[in-house]
Amino acid sequence: MEERTVFFLSDQTGVTAETLGHSLLTQFSSRNFRQMTVPFIDTEDKARAAVRTINAVQESGAPKPIVFSTLVQDEYREILKEANGLHLDIFDVFLTPLAAELGEEPSYEPGRAHGMSDIDAYMKRIEATNFALANDDGGISRNYEVADLILIGVSRSGKTPTCLYLALQYGVFAANYPLTDEEFESGKLPEFLVQQKEKLFGLSIAPERLLQIRKERRPMGKYSSSQQIRFEIRETQKIFRRYGIPYVDTTEFSIEEISSRILDSTGVERRVRP
Amino acid sequence: MEERTVFFLSDQTGVTAETLGHSLLTQFSSRNFRQMTVPFIDTEDKARAAVRTINAVQESGAPKPIVFSTLVQDEYREILKEANGLHLDIFDVFLTPLAAELGEEPSYEPGRAHGMSDIDAYMKRIEATNFALANDDGGISRNYEVADLILIGVSRSGKTPTCLYLALQYGVFAANYPLTDEEFESGKLPEFLVQQKEKLFGLSIAPERLLQIRKERRPMGKYSSSQQIRFEIRETQKIFRRYGIPYVDTTEFSIEEISSRILDSTGVERRVRP
Repeated sequence: MEERTVFFLSDQTGVTAETLGHSLLTQFSSRNFRQMTVPFIDTEDKARAAVRTINAVQESGAPKPIVFSTLVQDEYREILKEANGLHLDIFDVFLTPLAAELGEEPSYEPGRAHGMSDIDAYMKRIEATNFALANDDGGISRNYEVADLILIGVSRSGKTPTCLYLALQYGVFAANYPLTDEEFESGKLPEFLVQQKEKLFGLSIAPERLLQIRKERRPMGKYSSSQQIRFEIRETQKIFRRYGIPYVDTTEFSIEEISSRILDSTGVERRVRP
Repeated sequence: MEERTVFFLSDQTGVTAETLGHSLLTQFSSRNFRQMTVPFIDTEDKARAAVRTINAVQESGAPKPIVFSTLVQDEYREILKEANGLHLDIFDVFLTPLAAELGEEPSYEPGRAHGMSDIDAYMKRIEATNFALANDDGGISRNYEVADLILIGVSRSGKTPTCLYLALQYGVFAANYPLTDEEFESGKLPEFLVQQKEKLFGLSIAPERLLQIRKERRPMGKYSSSQQIRFEIRETQKIFRRYGIPYVDTTEFSIEEISSRILDSTGVERRVRP
């Protein structure tokens, strides 16, 4: 099937246009999309250059491009409207009803989202990321008193990326601790974890999926044996039950889904917003 | 000023609604917003519970809540419309023109974005995250042959969070290497970096800002002295010039902005899309 070119235009990073556009495009999953982000359109020259890039697509004989844009300044938006494409202007549609409801004019200043307008939020994300790194894999600091969450689960169940995502996206302080033979043999969690029981959240995963992931990492040996994996998952489930630890099965979930489910289930507050 | 309650409703993670909503709300920066995400609205009961939560806000005497939503299923969207609030339905607005342009009906299946629909994308993000961790701070593997990018800069210039963000958001393989006294004294980069010169990208930062960041981490000593910081930044600039390394000043930029500017400047392709 023919490929559609999709542009994400922004006077800032383009993250909002990318996120919204991607959500909508996934509703047409049989299609092939070629996606291009054009960020930081903050001069007339850059706006005109973007128009030329978009028009070049259609002039090459390809079908009409789709354009998602999030520019706040009218003058550059007007220029972009000259481009030949289906133009979905996100601020155009939503800013007017929002301003009417709030009884206030928008600032029309670019770069408020995903910018440094809130230095506290930036520092919080960096702090949370450093926390996740220092408390990764049961490591170095075990500074669990200040943790919002401590994720536990077997190796490769998704603990590290989930902690990092929670830190970068939401400023949440998430530590993680791997369950290993020590816990499986005793059937018990170490005392320093039991003391933080209300912060514990489990990640489980289907044996077939874990086998696939581990084999990519280390094809041979006990670590990637079906028998070992089944043993680890069974013992992990016992530990979750024994201590009444809530958990989520990560098998069919993306990092975003795992993170959202954890926050939804625990009620842990987002410290910053994306 | 009175606080407005803002809801992000979704049949999935809520990330799209949060991202778009946050972008729009930052245009009204004098306001206080209380933000709540209600994800995974995938049953009639959950939809009705969300309506009750929204209505409770206004019944308590607070001003009309603002509701951003990204549900794809009509039946739950209809229920949510019963809620008393300014309802900004993202799919309502954009899905129809997009479907018309593509000449195809949307699938109306929830959970295609930020979901596991694309297992390759998921694996790529995890791989990239593992790569960033193993190649953080000049560490362990120095597996620079497969890197898309190698960020260099002084300690606390933003290298680690930027690499992790590029990995989690875009599946980009980014390593980082800290410039320290060894480089400053010789004025040279190590040979293994020079060999990868086309992958190098610099992060610079204003001395005042770096002082502030380092003092929070370690209030005393050479590491946080104004003199040392000015020396490091001056020498870093010399190295960037000597080798012709492009760089971005991170002082006033968020992680998203730094990342977007690097991708925009280098032309490194996003391997996955958020």
